[in-house]
Amino acid sequence: MRISELSRRTGAPVTTLKYYLREGLVHEGERLSGNQTSYDESHLQRVRLVRALLETGGLSIADAKRVLATLDAREELAYTFAAAQHALGVGGASTTTASDAARRRIDDLAAANDWRTTPDNPGRDVAARVLDDLASIGFEPSDAYLSAYASAASSIAHADVSALRDRATADLTAELMIVGTVLGDALIAGLRRLAQQDATADLFPVSTPSSASSASAPSSTRKARS
Amino acid sequence: MRISELSRRTGAPVTTLKYYLREGLVHEGERLSGNQTSYDESHLQRVRLVRALLETGGLSIADAKRVLATLDAREELAYTFAAAQHALGVGGASTTTASDAARRRIDDLAAANDWRTTPDNPGRDVAARVLDDLASIGFEPSDAYLSAYASAASSIAHADVSALRDRATADLTAELMIVGTVLGDALIAGLRRLAQQDATADLFPVSTPSSASSASAPSSTRKARS
Repeated sequence: MRISELSRRTGAPVTTLKYYLREGLVHEGERLSGNQTSYDESHLQRVRLVRALLETGGLSIADAKRVLATLDAREELAYTFAAAQHALGVGGASTTTASDAARRRIDDLAAANDWRTTPDNPGRDVAARVLDDLASIGFEPSDAYLSAYASAASSIAHADVSALRDRATADLTAELMIVGTVLGDALIAGLRRLAQQDATADLFPVSTPSSASSASAPSSTRKARS
Repeated sequence: MRISELSRRTGAPVTTLKYYLREGLVHEGERLSGNQTSYDESHLQRVRLVRALLETGGLSIADAKRVLATLDAREELAYTFAAAQHALGVGGASTTTASDAARRRIDDLAAANDWRTTPDNPGRDVAARVLDDLASIGFEPSDAYLSAYASAASSIAHADVSALRDRATADLTAELMIVGTVLGDALIAGLRRLAQQDATADLFPVSTPSSASSASAPSSTRKARS
């Protein structure tokens, strides 16, 4: 197919596709006579994968390149998994590192849950930085709060691993490892928003029920908190 | 204090602080004689909050501005909550919308969990887009997989709400609403990485144990997957 059809079938503008090709995120098509290039099903699949990682997963181009390179190299699954682990769509560029005290608290939490982890696990520093940030606004999470998060993380991780186990081939497992690790963050964040709306419904009633769920309700209908 | 001290105490470079001030993320200091400006504890607190939202939370400047404006307006807590809900650090700019089928599946999941939600909850579209993206690589999540994620989301949401309940004043509740909603995504993502490392330890053994956790081990020690 031509690039215009690839664009139509993936919903990605032609300029975006050319950008993906130039960055090496998508492999080159077959050069035909003149300046025509032909793309096939493998390009279709790859463009969808790239869009999932960048748009829904929020990965940077550099992170997407790194995980896709591991996928293409058909590495041992343990390495593909490590690459997927390092692709964290959550959080901006971290110019700050976590405090030792916060790291220790995360290590204690991991130990309490019998998690076999290594110090270079990227989740450790991300979680520890959250504790530092919460402390900076005067919130010291209770053990119950952290336990709830850790139990939730365990349940999700086991669901993730069960899904990996069910894939028919190593290549399909590798692909799900990467996509599932990245998109699982977005899935739990989305479901958390839904569950929070329910959990807070009784706690924070609004004066005008019809605008209860809109952040952009006209300010004349609002009552300042006392 | 001078801007240099504000920089030292927050770890933010002076150029970054000036950027925050220009963008209105941090309120102006007090103009002294000449071109000296003085900052106080309120600036210190605010810079820490902004950095938490941008760096650990991964919010865009525009999103951070929006949630901080709600905080500053001292709105009714229900509105502050709605603004926090709309601040999703996860996911990139969404040029695609979810399919109706995916939205229906998320609605069914919410109904199965008795969640009282509204269609404009931003988590709904984020979660539904994940389902579409997973389907595009041929992975149709099982009901068990989605149930595990939904239960995890419920547990976290209840921990979040308990924490809000414990705050002494409405202003402190509002602050935690915003920071907790944004940073909770990073916390669960980080803990999920740790739990995954444990859950997959037996499933994907590596040939050289010493490089088990490194994505950048020299390729000569790797074995391609079969």
